Amino acid sequence: MTNQVVAYLQENREKLLEKLYTYLRIPSISTDSTYKEDVAKTAGFTADYLKEIGFDKVTIQETERHPIVTGEWLGAGPDKPTALFYGHYDVQPADPLPLWDSEPFEPTERNGRIYARGVSDDKGQVFMHLAVFEAFMKTEGALPINVKVCIEGEEEIGSTNLHAVLHEQTEQFQADFAIISDSGMVESGQPTMLYGLKGAAALEFSVYGPDRDLHSGMYGGAVRNPLQALAHILSSLKDEEEVVQVEGFYDGVEELPEEERKLMAQAPGEDFVQTVGVPEAVSEKGYTAKEHTMARPTLEINGMYGGYQGEGTKTIIPAEATAKITSRLVPGQDPVDIVEKITAHIEKYAPAGVRVEVRPEPFKAKAYKVDPNHPLIQKAAESLTQAFGKETVFVRMGGSIPVVEWIDTVYQMPVVLLGFGTPEDRLHSPNESFPLESFDKGMETLVYYYQKVSE
Amino acid sequence: MTNQVVAYLQENREKLLEKLYTYLRIPSISTDSTYKEDVAKTAGFTADYLKEIGFDKVTIQETERHPIVTGEWLGAGPDKPTALFYGHYDVQPADPLPLWDSEPFEPTERNGRIYARGVSDDKGQVFMHLAVFEAFMKTEGALPINVKVCIEGEEEIGSTNLHAVLHEQTEQFQADFAIISDSGMVESGQPTMLYGLKGAAALEFSVYGPDRDLHSGMYGGAVRNPLQALAHILSSLKDEEEVVQVEGFYDGVEELPEEERKLMAQAPGEDFVQTVGVPEAVSEKGYTAKEHTMARPTLEINGMYGGYQGEGTKTIIPAEATAKITSRLVPGQDPVDIVEKITAHIEKYAPAGVRVEVRPEPFKAKAYKVDPNHPLIQKAAESLTQAFGKETVFVRMGGSIPVVEWIDTVYQMPVVLLGFGTPEDRLHSPNESFPLESFDKGMETLVYYYQKVSE
Repeated sequence: MTNQVVAYLQENREKLLEKLYTYLRIPSISTDSTYKEDVAKTAGFTADYLKEIGFDKVTIQETERHPIVTGEWLGAGPDKPTALFYGHYDVQPADPLPLWDSEPFEPTERNGRIYARGVSDDKGQVFMHLAVFEAFMKTEGALPINVKVCIEGEEEIGSTNLHAVLHEQTEQFQADFAIISDSGMVESGQPTMLYGLKGAAALEFSVYGPDRDLHSGMYGGAVRNPLQALAHILSSLKDEEEVVQVEGFYDGVEELPEEERKLMAQAPGEDFVQTVGVPEAVSEKGYTAKEHTMARPTLEINGMYGGYQGEGTKTIIPAEATAKITSRLVPGQDPVDIVEKITAHIEKYAPAGVRVEVRPEPFKAKAYKVDPNHPLIQKAAESLTQAFGKETVFVRMGGSIPVVEWIDTVYQMPVVLLGFGTPEDRLHSPNESFPLESFDKGMETLVYYYQKVSE
Repeated sequence: MTNQVVAYLQENREKLLEKLYTYLRIPSISTDSTYKEDVAKTAGFTADYLKEIGFDKVTIQETERHPIVTGEWLGAGPDKPTALFYGHYDVQPADPLPLWDSEPFEPTERNGRIYARGVSDDKGQVFMHLAVFEAFMKTEGALPINVKVCIEGEEEIGSTNLHAVLHEQTEQFQADFAIISDSGMVESGQPTMLYGLKGAAALEFSVYGPDRDLHSGMYGGAVRNPLQALAHILSSLKDEEEVVQVEGFYDGVEELPEEERKLMAQAPGEDFVQTVGVPEAVSEKGYTAKEHTMARPTLEINGMYGGYQGEGTKTIIPAEATAKITSRLVPGQDPVDIVEKITAHIEKYAPAGVRVEVRPEPFKAKAYKVDPNHPLIQKAAESLTQAFGKETVFVRMGGSIPVVEWIDTVYQMPVVLLGFGTPEDRLHSPNESFPLESFDKGMETLVYYYQKVSE
């Protein structure tokens, strides 16, 4: 039986791609105020498309920086579920420009991919939802379910204004579930159901010793070297089996259910020796690298510095040393609590002769996880399998998407993460791209999904 | 009984100071080729003064960079000992200039001190010897002993050309002992006999993990973090009691003789909490901070870096991390051997999942020590006590003076380190200065010393 909505998308493919390219041509770089008007123009384009499709109450809601585009179509009636679709129309800067093989804001097709800034993250994936809504309206005159839309322009700069709006305009965004396409698949062509994200906690700390850099010949042997003290503290954070030694770090973390371990084992694994060039992969004792990256908390030093960094030798004992740490959290861990525990550990392990100062960083989020057996997730997986013609794998991810935590916390509704990016997309880097296969099969997936959820 | 040589110095003090100031006004900055002519001019001034005094064979020996001034006066005859006087006429750069309270190359007297670049390190102290030689010649028509002179212009840039000259022209510099005034006293006005210097060994090493910086959310839990590995290795180098854990590090190090411990205990100690602002001093288990800095080997991290060093958070696992290490050695330790032992330790403690690379640095020297009871040392101490009117203390020093090791190794003669600087002299920093008391009493010391050695 031909699906007429899918057929519409196929028949209108060229026209839709052309429209997507127009969307991608506007450089909606949110971090750089030079592009403020382009960001506004992109919001306008988004709103116009929603109106054209037939959405109601389409609004460009101004904020202190970049607007949020909202709208709704509630024509499916109260018997049908309501989805909140979230996405973002802003993009990362394109520099360094010389590293692009084609213009970042002139979409170009080659090797079965579209090359353009924002094509994967996230304008391309936002556009796919809108195109699917268009297809439903053009063919069936209605969407299968009620849809509320929230598309922001500040995701790449921290979603500050969205945070306030989501917490204040709760009635406007209330729905039965949220759907977001701002993530990816484990590998190109492999349909992937993402059912969990990690949270995050961050801090930096400094070790202070003498009040100035000292001559290491004159003072070596009389004062504690802040670099030595820093190394001592950092070394104490994890053992050689990658088990975090901070007291209480694993409190509240649930054992990984056997069922999930099976799901993860089925997902394609990365051969880290090949993909990132390490001599060998290492992971927490008792867990595979896949399990550790997806579903176990981590603690990483992201940066560290102190003393002389130039060429050759400078014989000093430096006055101070600093390290930056982030921790990725799983359900059961609270970022504020984790920062406190790491702080206590640092203070406990600081040796005599130095002073430590810990500074929590604002980057923090709770983990998100939905039951992989939840009907909304199972239906998404079925839609993926149907469109891609391949069994869907279930994964959790080590990254954090703050908006997911906010929706989870404020609205207590499941968030369906249906992303079509691939590991080769080069998000935030030169030559960002998105496979045409993801464009086609991704839209097909969304058609099936909105239909299935309506049943 | 009046010492007529000392009297000459007192009577001609103003004239001598004026001559010193002329010497100091020439900016003999060896590292900066802009000053090449000034360096040459300073060599010329030095040579002219030697000729004026009555030295023979005064030569400005050209090298690939800056010349070495040599000369000799052997009129005391074969029955008297011969001293090799070494010093350097080059100076450190003066920047940052705004931090000087008076012009670096316009000597200014205030608070009982002469302020000028090079006044303590080392032009001022070189000048004192020359002035003493002048005083002997003018009053007695002869020096009390034979003297060979070697004054170089590359000490502040590693003495590369002197190294070759000292190793090749051995006949020219052969003597019974060497005398150097390029060091200081433990505190202003406290006569100090320096009878030992530490050696040095240096290396840097890097830890390599993934072939690029990775997203810490995506890869945290699968790869070893090079910063964590670096911290682990560094932490293993010393225990919390400052005992170096490198296998064989203390091999060949003699126990500190009880007599020396007594000598060191008599030297004024620094209150590190006051002088360098540390919460408390720390030193090797079983040794005081004074003993450790003076006479026990040390190992210090001089610099360390890797990953993100900017503001805020960047969630990466960096590709690499680097640390720089120097070790200060005592007699019985060999710098090449120590670098090998530290290298073996680093390789042994490198955890799985990373690769380490150790790069030895050229900075290396063996320790130097002379028996504090050696007559040449005892006479120096007596001369100091006589001039300063205060009991001389005996110390060893944590720093290294490479030329001392070369003279010791090539010529196997004792090196008498008679320095008159003070801890407040700010060598290499803005506002370098030298006490007028050191100028006066230092020259007096040298008069007594050259006389005593002649007996």
